[in-house]
Amino acid sequence: MNIEKIISCIDHTLLKQDASAEDIYKLCEEALTYKPASICIPPFYVRSAVSYLDGKVPVCTVIGFPNGYQTLKSKLYEVCDAIGEGADEIDMVISIAALKSGLFDYVRDEIGLLRQACADKVLKVIVETSLLTEEEKIRMCEIVTDARADYIKTSTGFASGGAELSDIELFKTHIGPDVKIKAAGGIRDPETAWRFIEAGVSRIGSSSVLRMIGSEQIKT
Amino acid sequence: MNIEKIISCIDHTLLKQDASAEDIYKLCEEALTYKPASICIPPFYVRSAVSYLDGKVPVCTVIGFPNGYQTLKSKLYEVCDAIGEGADEIDMVISIAALKSGLFDYVRDEIGLLRQACADKVLKVIVETSLLTEEEKIRMCEIVTDARADYIKTSTGFASGGAELSDIELFKTHIGPDVKIKAAGGIRDPETAWRFIEAGVSRIGSSSVLRMIGSEQIKT
Repeated sequence: MNIEKIISCIDHTLLKQDASAEDIYKLCEEALTYKPASICIPPFYVRSAVSYLDGKVPVCTVIGFPNGYQTLKSKLYEVCDAIGEGADEIDMVISIAALKSGLFDYVRDEIGLLRQACADKVLKVIVETSLLTEEEKIRMCEIVTDARADYIKTSTGFASGGAELSDIELFKTHIGPDVKIKAAGGIRDPETAWRFIEAGVSRIGSSSVLRMIGSEQIKT
Repeated sequence: MNIEKIISCIDHTLLKQDASAEDIYKLCEEALTYKPASICIPPFYVRSAVSYLDGKVPVCTVIGFPNGYQTLKSKLYEVCDAIGEGADEIDMVISIAALKSGLFDYVRDEIGLLRQACADKVLKVIVETSLLTEEEKIRMCEIVTDARADYIKTSTGFASGGAELSDIELFKTHIGPDVKIKAAGGIRDPETAWRFIEAGVSRIGSSSVLRMIGSEQIKT
């Protein structure tokens, strides 16, 4: 297990609906100490965190989160707003509603338009694997590839299930060479994070992995 | 227990992130048969449902849902968009993040601006009781009253807890005379709905109460 590698893959995350400014401040402090890939926080806190971190750690936020069933117009507005607030990375939730209604072109067009709105920012597409059939997961791999998103991401952490190693295998088989994988939801310790990295994941969304690494370092 | 009264208080609700167009169609059909107060559905489906119901049942949708931590600008855009799509009623989630950060004026101003954007549409303010202290619940009663929202609503149904009769008592003590109460989250049968109505609730959000009433009527 390579701790440095794990840290470099972590989106240090706090998306609880009752997270306070103080909680976000602590998250920023931890990020400044350990330099994870990013912090992932609610849109409400993006501007303050960007200002506080001053370019030292990228700030990621979430769009259409966690249910994905806002209108396309609202999601586009939300992305532009987040980028205006200074977000470096965008984790969007697909319209699971559209997918479940068989509107595959809508799902593709939505991601494509958000891709354009993101310009050079990193775009991750959350498909919420626990709610999808295997066929739908494969379809989403194709759509995310077509729409030229940077990442396919397993889960929001707010649905019934989280990241599964079997889904990483499935994604690897069906995404294009330019799409990376982010695993999130239920990854709570460095050992689990490492298993996902070994399976081919480039980013890990977790609220606890970085904290556990920090506690270990203080103990030893 | 007065079944007609219960039906007249129900916001017949389907907010699961994987609800398909067919699921929403069934919800609309049930609403046309039983005439509840409204149907409450994701923004994604508002335009179709408004067109399908053709004014026979009001359409309610959700804003900043369920976590409430979008920016104020994004929530305002989302409300205007929902009204443009034809929504008759708006259930917004407060910025629990701002409340937990002690930014009470922000919470009040946000609701006030959404109130203005809603104009004559019904505005319900979801405070997510299960995440609040008693002091915060009382504060929200005052803020919702000040901001002239139509309803204070207990829960999204997506947090750890739902509606509690003790919260209805608390709300009744602290809201102004023009504010009504909507209870939602975990109200699954007509008996429970009736207990909340007797406690002083004017609206009930539930995905199952209307269906159970319908099944009973077919049995007898």
